[in-house]
Amino acid sequence: MISTKLFFEEALKPIKESEVETLFAKICEEQQSIGFYSLPTDSARTVDNIYKFILSNNAVYKGKIKNLVLLGIGGSSLGTKAVDCALKHSKNRNDINLIFLENCDPNEVGALLSGVKAKDTLFIMISKSGSTIETTSLAKYVIAKFFKTIENPRLKKRFLIITDEDSPLDRFGKEFGLERFYIAPNVGGRFSVLSAVGLLPLAILGYDIRKLLLGAAKFKKSFFDANEFEMIKKALYYVHNYEKYPINVLFSYSSSLDKLTAWYVQLWAESLGKIDKDGKNVGLTPIGLVGSVDQHSFLQLIVEGPKNKSVTFVKVKEFKNNSKIPNITIKNLEKTDFVNGLNLADLLNAQCEATLETLVEKNIPVDIIELDTLNEESIGALIFYYELLTAIAGKAFDINTYDQPGVEFGKRKLFEKLSKK
Amino acid sequence: MISTKLFFEEALKPIKESEVETLFAKICEEQQSIGFYSLPTDSARTVDNIYKFILSNNAVYKGKIKNLVLLGIGGSSLGTKAVDCALKHSKNRNDINLIFLENCDPNEVGALLSGVKAKDTLFIMISKSGSTIETTSLAKYVIAKFFKTIENPRLKKRFLIITDEDSPLDRFGKEFGLERFYIAPNVGGRFSVLSAVGLLPLAILGYDIRKLLLGAAKFKKSFFDANEFEMIKKALYYVHNYEKYPINVLFSYSSSLDKLTAWYVQLWAESLGKIDKDGKNVGLTPIGLVGSVDQHSFLQLIVEGPKNKSVTFVKVKEFKNNSKIPNITIKNLEKTDFVNGLNLADLLNAQCEATLETLVEKNIPVDIIELDTLNEESIGALIFYYELLTAIAGKAFDINTYDQPGVEFGKRKLFEKLSKK
Repeated sequence: MISTKLFFEEALKPIKESEVETLFAKICEEQQSIGFYSLPTDSARTVDNIYKFILSNNAVYKGKIKNLVLLGIGGSSLGTKAVDCALKHSKNRNDINLIFLENCDPNEVGALLSGVKAKDTLFIMISKSGSTIETTSLAKYVIAKFFKTIENPRLKKRFLIITDEDSPLDRFGKEFGLERFYIAPNVGGRFSVLSAVGLLPLAILGYDIRKLLLGAAKFKKSFFDANEFEMIKKALYYVHNYEKYPINVLFSYSSSLDKLTAWYVQLWAESLGKIDKDGKNVGLTPIGLVGSVDQHSFLQLIVEGPKNKSVTFVKVKEFKNNSKIPNITIKNLEKTDFVNGLNLADLLNAQCEATLETLVEKNIPVDIIELDTLNEESIGALIFYYELLTAIAGKAFDINTYDQPGVEFGKRKLFEKLSKK
Repeated sequence: MISTKLFFEEALKPIKESEVETLFAKICEEQQSIGFYSLPTDSARTVDNIYKFILSNNAVYKGKIKNLVLLGIGGSSLGTKAVDCALKHSKNRNDINLIFLENCDPNEVGALLSGVKAKDTLFIMISKSGSTIETTSLAKYVIAKFFKTIENPRLKKRFLIITDEDSPLDRFGKEFGLERFYIAPNVGGRFSVLSAVGLLPLAILGYDIRKLLLGAAKFKKSFFDANEFEMIKKALYYVHNYEKYPINVLFSYSSSLDKLTAWYVQLWAESLGKIDKDGKNVGLTPIGLVGSVDQHSFLQLIVEGPKNKSVTFVKVKEFKNNSKIPNITIKNLEKTDFVNGLNLADLLNAQCEATLETLVEKNIPVDIIELDTLNEESIGALIFYYELLTAIAGKAFDINTYDQPGVEFGKRKLFEKLSKK
C-alpha cells in the first residue's frame, strides 16, 4: 500500500521518546472530537446511500450522464480533483466528463460549460453552509443558464447538494425537493475528501470508494496501533525547526499526483498557518512539485539556494503501463542511449532516486513515501497519512488546526466593497 | 498594456537612488552580452522565417494539422504553455490541439497520445543541445510509435527541430533533412519564450507573435528609457531582505494565468537559487497562486502564518466576456445576493482588491501588476517585465543568473545508476 522512510535520522536524535508518546496520546484524545478521524471506518451508511442513489438513478446508472459538474471551491473540490487525477488512467474510471466550476473567471466558466447540455449533465453543489460566494454565484449562473428559474421541476433530477445537515443550503434543498448528501459532523472542508464531498462524485465516476476508505482505514489502524511513530518524529522535527526550515516541499514523481500536491498545499497551509497561543505567527509553507518535470524548474533552488526546505518524495513503485524507450539511436546524440530499452517508468523512478540521493548528500531533511501502485487503496492511505501528519503538526504547534480565521477579514472587505455598488 | 504599483513605499525609503542607478547601469551593460534582452527587438528574421514556413506548409496552413505535439521540458515548454493558457480564449487561437510531451510518466504519455495519428500531427522537438534525457527518450518513443524508424522519409514532413545552431541535435537534423529553427545565440531555456522556442508553436496556434514581441519591446523601451526604476527598487528590496522574506508569491487573479505563474516559478527559482561569490546559498523561493481559488487554500497562511512572504498580485482590468451573476435568490441564502447582477469579472476583481487591501493592512510587502486585458501585447509585456526583474535581482545578488550548476550532479547520478543496468 504505502511505506515511508526518513533520511534524516541523525537530526531526529534530540527528539525524546516521551515527547513522541505525549503527542501520540494527544492525537488519540483528539480523535474523539474531530470528525475526519472517523471517516475511514464509520462511513458505511454514507457509502450505502451513495450506491443506492447511483443504482436507483437511471440517468447515472445507465450511462446517460455525460458530464458531472461540481460547484465547489477549496476543500469542496481539491480532494475529488486529487483522487481523479491520480487514478484517471485506471480501469475503474468511466468516461463521464468531470468539470469543476470553482473560479468566477468568465473565460474559464464559458469554456468549461461550452457544449454542456442539461439533459445529460448532473450538477452537484458542494458547500458546508452555502454561503461561499463563488459557489453560490456559479450555482445561480448555472441555474439561469440551464434551468431558467429555480422553480424549474427539472432541477430536482439534475441538481444535487452536499452540505452540512440543517445548514441554510440544506434547508433550501429540502424545501425545493432536491436530493441532499450530508458531510459527516465536525469535518472541515479540507479534511472532507473521505466524506460524501469526495465519495459521491468519485463513486459516480466509477471509482471503488470502499477501497479508498479501506486504504485509509488500514493506515489509520497502523497509526493507532502505535506503528507509525516515525511520522510523529518527522512532524515534531518540522515544528521544532520551522524557523530554520520554513518550507516543506512535496515532490511527487508522477504527473498523476499533480493535483494531490495541490490538495496537500491547501491542507498544510490552511491548517498550520496560524497565530499560536503566545500570539506568534507560526506555520510551514507547502510547495508541491512534480518529478521529473520540476527538476528542470525548481531543483536548482533546492540544491544551491537557501537551505530552508525539507523535502518529501512520493514514488510509485509499479506502473501498470510498461511502455519502453525504444532501441533507437539519434545520430550525434548517442550519449543518451544508456536509457534505451528501459521502461519509461524505470527512468522516472531512477530520476526520483537520483534526486533524492543528491538532496540527502546535501544534508537536506529528506523522506520518501512509496506507493505500491496507483489504486484506490494506496491513494486512500496517502490521503489519511497526510491528514494525520497535519493533525500531528498542528498539535505540536499547539494551534487550532481546524479553523481559518485569517480569511474572514477579506470576506467582510469584499462585502463592504460590493454592497456599496 | 501593463501598469505596476508598489504598496510598501515606506519600507523602500532606505534604498538609495545611487544604488538604483548603479544597478540600472549594470543591466544596461549586461544587455550587450546576454541574448534574451535582444529578442523583443531583433527577432524580425525569426518571425519572417516562421510565417514563411507556415504559409508554405500546406498542412499547417490549410487546417490539416489537428495536433501539435511539443517534445520539450522546462524552459522548452513552460513559456509556450504560459502564453497559450493566458490567451486560449482569444479569437486568434485556432482549434489545433496542443500536446506537451514532457514527463516520462507512462500513464500520461499513453493518455496524451491516444487518438493521435501521424498524418494530421506535427511534432516539434525542442532542446538546446538535444541531450535532455526526457526529451530525447520521448522523441525516440514518438519516432518508433508513429514512424517506425528514424529513416522514414515521412519524418521530414512531420518532425521539426528547435535547437541551438550547430548543436548535436542540429547536426542530426541537417543530416536527415529535417526542418530546423534556431534559438537566438546566448539565450537560456527559461528566457527563451520570445525566441523560436515559443514563437514557432504560438504562431502555428494562430497567435499574433508580432504583437507578443511588440508588447515586450514597448516594456523594454520603457525600462531602458529609465522609466521603470520602481521595479529596480522592488528587486533591491527583495534581495536586501531575502532572509526576512525568503518567499515571493505571485497571486494571479485569472485562471488563464495559471501556467504563467508556473513559468515564473521556473524563471525565478532556477535563476536566483545560487551560491554567491562568498559561498553563501542565496535566492528567493517563488510560489504561484491563482485567485480567487487559492484564497480558499493558501491565503490563511499568508495572513496568519510566519511573515516571510512578499506578494505580487496580477489583475486583468478588462475581461471581454461579460457574463453576469443572475438576479436569482436562493432561499435561506439571501445574504449572498449582494453580488447579484454583477459581472463575474467584477466579482473576481473585487476579490483581488479585497485580498490586496487585507495584506497591505497586515504590513506585508505587496505590489500589483495590472494588465489592460488579456492579449498578445499585454502578455508580451508581462513576460519581459519578469525576465527583467529576474535579471535585476540576479545582478543585485551578484550571482550568475543564467546557469544552473546545481542540477548537473543529479544527472551524473542518474547516468551512473542506469548505465550499470
